[in-house]
Formats: sequence, C-alpha cells, structure tokens
Amino acid sequence: MNLRTPGPIPLPDDILETMSGPMINHRGPEFAELLNRATARLKQVFDTESDLYVITGSGTAAMEAAVVNTLSPGDRVINLSIGAFGDRFAQIAEIFGAEVTRLSFPLGTTVDPDALRKALRNDSEIKAVLVTHNETSTGVTNDLEAVAGVAKGEFDKLVLVDGISSVASLPLRTDAWGCDVVVSASQKGWMLPPGLAFITFSERAWQAHAEARMPRFYFDMAQYRSYLEKGQPPYTPAISIMFAMDLALKKLLDEGMGSVFERHAGIGRMTRQGIKDLGLSLFPEESVASDTVTAVRVPDGVDGAKLNGLLREEHDVVLAGGQAELAGKIFRIGHMGYCTPEEIQDVLDALAQVLPKLGFATK
Amino acid sequence: MNLRTPGPIPLPDDILETMSGPMINHRGPEFAELLNRATARLKQVFDTESDLYVITGSGTAAMEAAVVNTLSPGDRVINLSIGAFGDRFAQIAEIFGAEVTRLSFPLGTTVDPDALRKALRNDSEIKAVLVTHNETSTGVTNDLEAVAGVAKGEFDKLVLVDGISSVASLPLRTDAWGCDVVVSASQKGWMLPPGLAFITFSERAWQAHAEARMPRFYFDMAQYRSYLEKGQPPYTPAISIMFAMDLALKKLLDEGMGSVFERHAGIGRMTRQGIKDLGLSLFPEESVASDTVTAVRVPDGVDGAKLNGLLREEHDVVLAGGQAELAGKIFRIGHMGYCTPEEIQDVLDALAQVLPKLGFATK
Repeated sequence: MNLRTPGPIPLPDDILETMSGPMINHRGPEFAELLNRATARLKQVFDTESDLYVITGSGTAAMEAAVVNTLSPGDRVINLSIGAFGDRFAQIAEIFGAEVTRLSFPLGTTVDPDALRKALRNDSEIKAVLVTHNETSTGVTNDLEAVAGVAKGEFDKLVLVDGISSVASLPLRTDAWGCDVVVSASQKGWMLPPGLAFITFSERAWQAHAEARMPRFYFDMAQYRSYLEKGQPPYTPAISIMFAMDLALKKLLDEGMGSVFERHAGIGRMTRQGIKDLGLSLFPEESVASDTVTAVRVPDGVDGAKLNGLLREEHDVVLAGGQAELAGKIFRIGHMGYCTPEEIQDVLDALAQVLPKLGFATK
Repeated sequence: MNLRTPGPIPLPDDILETMSGPMINHRGPEFAELLNRATARLKQVFDTESDLYVITGSGTAAMEAAVVNTLSPGDRVINLSIGAFGDRFAQIAEIFGAEVTRLSFPLGTTVDPDALRKALRNDSEIKAVLVTHNETSTGVTNDLEAVAGVAKGEFDKLVLVDGISSVASLPLRTDAWGCDVVVSASQKGWMLPPGLAFITFSERAWQAHAEARMPRFYFDMAQYRSYLEKGQPPYTPAISIMFAMDLALKKLLDEGMGSVFERHAGIGRMTRQGIKDLGLSLFPEESVASDTVTAVRVPDGVDGAKLNGLLREEHDVVLAGGQAELAGKIFRIGHMGYCTPEEIQDVLDALAQVLPKLGFATK
C-alpha cells in the first residue's frame, strides 16, 4: 500500500523492526539511557535548549498539555487559526476556561502578522498567542518566524505552537524565534508510528506554569520534569515506540537536519509540479503551500470520495480527503518523513489513470 | 532478561512481531475492522455490555478519563485507598475539583466494606465511589464484588474502578458487580506493550457525563463514542500497539478467560509458596495477596536496593522495589500476563543464591 495520508506514514523497515524488541523496565538503567539520549536528540531537532518531554499520547494530547500547563481559567489569549487544527487549539483553550479571541483566516491562506499586531495593540491583557505552524487540514505553512516575531518580539507574549506536522520536516527554530512551547507528534516527519508526542518548555513557560491554574494531572509537566531527573517518565510510556524513536532520531541527525529539510522542500516541489502538470489546482496559493502535505482541489464535477476510493481500490494508493467544510472539496497527499520521489510519482500516475474515469480530462 | 516487574512484562514473540507491521490509515476500512473486532473482544474480557473505548496513553490517562467524564468540581466522592495507586485516584479527583473523602486502609490490607457502608450512611451527598481492584504497590487484591455491592447495590452510587493490574488476569465482572467505569492498561495482563488504556462506560456513566462539568478534551468520551460509530478513534492512535492488541485478544479468548484466570491463580500460589519456602515473608496477609504481583518483605538487615541490584547484575532478574514509604521495605515480583512457572522458578533460584550474600540465611 502506498499510504500517503498526512500521518501516519510508511516507515523504514529498520525502524519498524525495532518495535519488536523485548520489553524493558521503564524504571531501569537501559531505559534511562535511552530516554536521556533521545531527549538530547529531540532538542537538536527542535533547535532548542529548553526543556523537552515525551508524552505517551497523540498530538492532540500535547496540544492540551501546552494549554493546561501555562494558562488559568479566565486568561485572555489570541488563537490564530487557518484550519481545523487551529480551531482545535482554540477549542481546547476554551474548554479549560481561557477567554479566547479567535483570529481566523480564510482556508488556504496564512496568518496575517499585521492582524495579530492590531489585535495585540487593542488588548493589552492578552497573555498568550496560540498558533499552528503547519496546518495539515489545508496544506498551508504559516510564517511562524514572522508571527512569533510579533507575538514575542514586539509584545513579549507567551507563544504556544502546534508544530505537529512541521517539526522534523520543516525548519522551526524554537528558541531563536521565541517559541515557549512547541508540540509535535511521532507519526509525522519523525518516521515513527503514532503514540508519542513531544513538547518543549521554555523558562518563560515554567514561569507561566507556576501561576497556571487549569487542572492537570496526566499532562502536568512538573511531574515530567521531576521524573526526568531520574531518566524516567512519570507514567508507564509506550516503550516499543521509544525503541523506534531512538533509531529514528539517530537516522535524522546522521542525515543532518539541513538535508532533511531540503529533502522535504524537494518532494513538496515535485508533488506540486506534478499536480499542476495533470491540470489540477493546488488548494492554497503555491507560495504558502506546505512541504509536508499537498492539498489539491477536487475538480468540478468529480466526486472526491469516489476519487479516493478508486485510487485505493485500483492502485493501492491511500490519500486523505478534506475535513469538515472541505470534505469532498479537496484531497490531500502526505509527503512528510520517509517518502521517495518514486512514491509520489506512483500517486501522480494513479491520478492520471483514475481522473479520466471520473470525467476529468488530465493534461 | 527475566523482567518480572508488575508491568511492563515480557511478551510472546508472535505478539512482538505484529508490532513491526506497516502503518495503515486510521481513518480507513482496515483499521475500522480491527478496532471494531478488538472492541467487541475487549468487552468480553471486561465481561461487559457497556460501551468501551481504547485510549492512547498510560493507565493513569484512563484513570483521569474516568474522573473527568463523570464528575463536576464540588462533587463529593469517596476514595478507597490501599496504596499508591488508590492515592493517585484521589489526587486526580481532587486536582479536578472534587471534594474527596479519603478512606485509607493500612498498606498490605484491603478495603473494609463496612467502613464504606458507614461513610455512605454518614454522607448522603456522595456521588461516586472510587476504588482500586488490584493495588500494584502492595500486592493486594480488594474484594471488588463486596465493595461495589455496597456502593452500587446498597447505595446506588456511581462506581469508578481502577482495574489496571487486574482486568485480563483476575475475574472482574464489570456489569454483574455494578461497576460503571472500569479502566485497564495494555502493559499488564493483556500481554501487550504499554501505550494503550481501556475504559468501560455504562449507561449510568453516560448520565453522569451529561452533567459532568470537569474540563476534558483529549479524554472526552463523547468524542470517542461519536468516532467509534465510524470505526475510528477521535485522535491518531498507537496503531502498532493495536496490531498487537488484535492478536493478544485473540490469544486470550482462544485460551478462554476461565483458563487465563486459573493460570494466574496457579502462578500466584506457586510464587507465594516459593517465597515462604525460602523463609521470606509476604507483605500482605496471604488471603488477600494478589495473583498478578507478589509483594515480599525485605528481611531485616538486608538492603533492598542491593538485593534488586544483585538479582539484576548476577542473574539478569529484574524485580520492582517498593514505592514511596515502602521503598527499601518490600520487593515485588510481577507475574501477570505471559509468565511461565520456569520464569518464577528462575526468580526463586536467584533469590536463593543472592540472599545469603546479603546476610539472610534462606531456608
């Protein structure tokens, strides 16, 4: 199967093989060695000297952790949304009692830093800015450096970043850009199965933590900090996925993050060019299109569900559809992590064969 | 390594091998088939017709889910604790704002149903009773049927059960005993790596959910319910561990739960007899000793840390020590899930060799 959803992604065989390793004691020395080594390597990928913790859970778990560890009910925050995952970040903050000003931008576009600047000028009580780096639902990458430059550089706010589908694939300079908390999840560019999430935590985040009154137990970073001093997580972790993490991080850093980012940029360009060559249209402006997932408009008159169904049945190619209001309007090709040009060509070839059957004449 | 902590446990090779399977789309038909099949089988093991969900996270995550989905800040609850994990259940409820009456019983003993009865008579405003079935920290199994019989049968309270180290190893009749929410975790008797947690949810629990005002997002069971109708989890799950779960459940049910329970009872008896034959003392009264983990007193004059260290270094046997106030006072032998008499004999033989070196003359 050519699994080209935006996570989970196909994994290299050697990484999959580590998953069959025998269990070890997560309170013992082998595990401590693994966790300490992995934590140091994760910090390299996040480009941070902040604290960093591994949570057993999905990316959404880490988004919740970002919120509940730094905010109190009643805190005023600005949420910048360009799609479903941006909306989710706002929803989490609201459910736990934050007063959220939602700045939402049209689907397929990016956050406008000027709009953020204006909003921050208008409300001096804002404590934090929540932003998605790469919006998986629309295939768009925000200019996080510019956004954080306003939020932190100009207004000195706490900056919470959903980097779930960007970190390890796209450049994200956690410290240099002034991000206090950045979260990611294993099934994206990390070349890992789902089940682990990662969270960075700056000194400023710890100051916020000391005052933050949202309730938290499983996600309380203070527990993670105190246990990490012993090379342990507070709760029993997904050990098998950590075996895989150990190898995946070595492979990423052996390749070099510069090369990893270039590889993603190349595969993104190739995918977009191939889509345009078929006569299809990208959903976002190409200048803001993501290098980890390409969102493509379903052509007029074509049934999006049938398109994905035929790709799957006749070509064993699995793409993602659109979510919520984009259902049936776009399809999405994931190309994060371990993805070869041949796999993308296979998707393009399958599209070339399937689209005419659905009434769309490819170029 | 003979890993005999009370979870994680060594796993059968065929279960480990499933973990190396290639990724699939968690929004696709193969996954839906797996999740639906596994959910039905999990219900058989939990002996329930209630709803049941799989959470990506540790057992503690599911304990938090049990609390935040059924209670509101200010709700009065009784927490029955016989050790560290019972205390944890109370702490979670308190952090999320419940008013917790803690009924704690001496370490090594069980909950006294009469004490619960008295407490429930004294406070008619109690909404829920929280109880641990099998307390891993002391190696004690509560008489859950009797406790739930009081809480539900006599007083009709909501009953929330930590069955983390009991379900799939010890008989627990969720519906027949009147348990509204029972949680467990994959690294215990399930013969799985850590990373998944399971939670049952009765009609009564759903009624409580409708009124419950504790904040919840990642753990909101309403999301799990609505996605399960499509054969999906709300957030990206630990797919590899689910491959293993699929096989482990088949193996458990092929063996038959009656036989699984008998096997645990037998291995528990063998462990306790072997410990007594060495001249060592069980920590709890034998009549309440757990069949999934045996807690043993460190003999006077013996250094508990050195004991576990020598077992590990010289015999490759990994046991757990005591937690918190029991540190250095007990050691614990896990025998849940996949555990042979030979592995227990190996532990007993290692103890027979190591103890004399630490000044204890075995029998």
